[in-house]
Amino acid sequence: MPAMHLKIIQYLKSAEGFVSGEDISRELGVSRSAVWKCIEDLRQEGYKVEAVPHHGYKLAALPDRLIAWEVQHNLGTRKFGCAVHHFAEIGSTMDEAFRLGMSGAPEGTVVAAELQTKGRGRLGRAWVSPGGSGLYFSLLLRPKLSTAEAARLTLLSSVALSEAVEKCSGVSALIKWPNDLLLGGRKLAGILTELRAEVDRVDFAVVGIGLNVNTAHKELPPEATSLKNESGQGYSRVAILQEFLRTFERRYLVLAKQGFGPALEEWRKRSATIGRRVRFEERGHKFEGLATGLADDGGLMVQLDNKQTVKRMAGDVIVELKDKKV
Amino acid sequence: MPAMHLKIIQYLKSAEGFVSGEDISRELGVSRSAVWKCIEDLRQEGYKVEAVPHHGYKLAALPDRLIAWEVQHNLGTRKFGCAVHHFAEIGSTMDEAFRLGMSGAPEGTVVAAELQTKGRGRLGRAWVSPGGSGLYFSLLLRPKLSTAEAARLTLLSSVALSEAVEKCSGVSALIKWPNDLLLGGRKLAGILTELRAEVDRVDFAVVGIGLNVNTAHKELPPEATSLKNESGQGYSRVAILQEFLRTFERRYLVLAKQGFGPALEEWRKRSATIGRRVRFEERGHKFEGLATGLADDGGLMVQLDNKQTVKRMAGDVIVELKDKKV
Repeated sequence: MPAMHLKIIQYLKSAEGFVSGEDISRELGVSRSAVWKCIEDLRQEGYKVEAVPHHGYKLAALPDRLIAWEVQHNLGTRKFGCAVHHFAEIGSTMDEAFRLGMSGAPEGTVVAAELQTKGRGRLGRAWVSPGGSGLYFSLLLRPKLSTAEAARLTLLSSVALSEAVEKCSGVSALIKWPNDLLLGGRKLAGILTELRAEVDRVDFAVVGIGLNVNTAHKELPPEATSLKNESGQGYSRVAILQEFLRTFERRYLVLAKQGFGPALEEWRKRSATIGRRVRFEERGHKFEGLATGLADDGGLMVQLDNKQTVKRMAGDVIVELKDKKV
Repeated sequence: MPAMHLKIIQYLKSAEGFVSGEDISRELGVSRSAVWKCIEDLRQEGYKVEAVPHHGYKLAALPDRLIAWEVQHNLGTRKFGCAVHHFAEIGSTMDEAFRLGMSGAPEGTVVAAELQTKGRGRLGRAWVSPGGSGLYFSLLLRPKLSTAEAARLTLLSSVALSEAVEKCSGVSALIKWPNDLLLGGRKLAGILTELRAEVDRVDFAVVGIGLNVNTAHKELPPEATSLKNESGQGYSRVAILQEFLRTFERRYLVLAKQGFGPALEEWRKRSATIGRRVRFEERGHKFEGLATGLADDGGLMVQLDNKQTVKRMAGDVIVELKDKKV
């Protein structure tokens, strides 16, 4: 957005009540017709600007869109959100972020969309992404991790998302291993991490998040829910995205300095999976057992009914047996 | 290349000695001027076609270029080489193959170039790729492997490349763990594997090969050599690429059916590293020991001087101590 538009938004935001076009014009050193033109542009972007003769202009509402300037306003991060690419509609934010990664975009670049036509989840599954009500974005990372350690990014971002949602809405969402947030047993958010890597070293990673914020129940698959659906009230997607970027960046810096321990500890507290009976298949055999913990590499520890303990990695399909919570 | 051109090449290849333009024209059902036009095009592509009045045409030499039709001619593979994208000059065949992978190109797609301006090796290092004399290509794979198993692709391709070079030239190149071929202790080829992956599952892999075939010593870094340099004679890059595609596809199919064992066994036979003293650093400490074997996951087993045995993965830097071969 051009600098003049940003200045006018800033000015309107800082004002209490109405400000006259003349005041804006004088303060910013531009003509009144230029002010009027900018305000028309802002209305196009979704800003609700009231205009009353002899009173002037008032910012009545911000656009509920993930536009760069709103996301970056008072963000206060070092890198995360340094660039925000916003799309009204896109196939998948993952693919665009991946392309940006390949062309050298910096760590912290965000790709956000109002609507995804080909949103996807883990193992190539589809992720339903109806327009304007959910938070769909991907974040480009350039971590110094081996390929084997990359699973940490999924766990780290699930912790950060659970924390950010809690801070913005008061709602405590649990983490279903390895990459979903649950609310009342239904899917609130999915997290997907994709890599470009040598066989042993991550070149870059893209963490993608789909969070159902204000999405109506009828727009979602039956096993899913939204924040609004559960709590009865709507939330600002921009505010949640900002809080996520702050929280995740903090945890990401801790990962580099102190290792994975602090995130693991928080993950365990927010886990929906630990303490549940789970079922999985391996080479045609079915196993059942109790999910007892999380290994340091992000694997799920399962105590089988024969008392043997095995570790499952994120690529494995685990079924949680809902009626048998211990 | 248009079908008519391919038919004319085929016809000239199958002929013994000269064939008249009239014969070609009658055989293929096109005008003599169309035949003449096609032959001009083929000369542009690098085919040497002699023309003698009253005798006709004769194919004197094939172009020594990695053009699709020559690579695919009598290739006899199932998938590998199914598409060949040939560039006179490119930044890196890896990036182009990666882009093709992202846009859904099929397994077995090859990107080959006469010259790379930004050829690269492992850990972001440069790979010198002078024009027209080396074999530079990338191969797109869509293996059913976990991310952790992807190192197998590098080892598999190093075995296949060593075998293909041996079959085409009689020269036995040894494999320096994890990804180089050596001849007389100098670098003959480098292999790089890059992935697009979820944290646990490979989406696609690109195996890139740089092989110094007919490259003059003065065009190479001092630690490198070429097949021509060592053996005194030149080789067809097309023939080596074809043989590699055949050999690698065979080993790749074996991997899917019988696992990694057969390739590992061959790798050990061709290893330049096993039996050598090696040095590496870990967290600021230097270690020396004897490379004793290859683990099933492709890691290098090293017996330290204190008799403890450790495993090094491909991301680690290992220095082979050249004067201490045991």
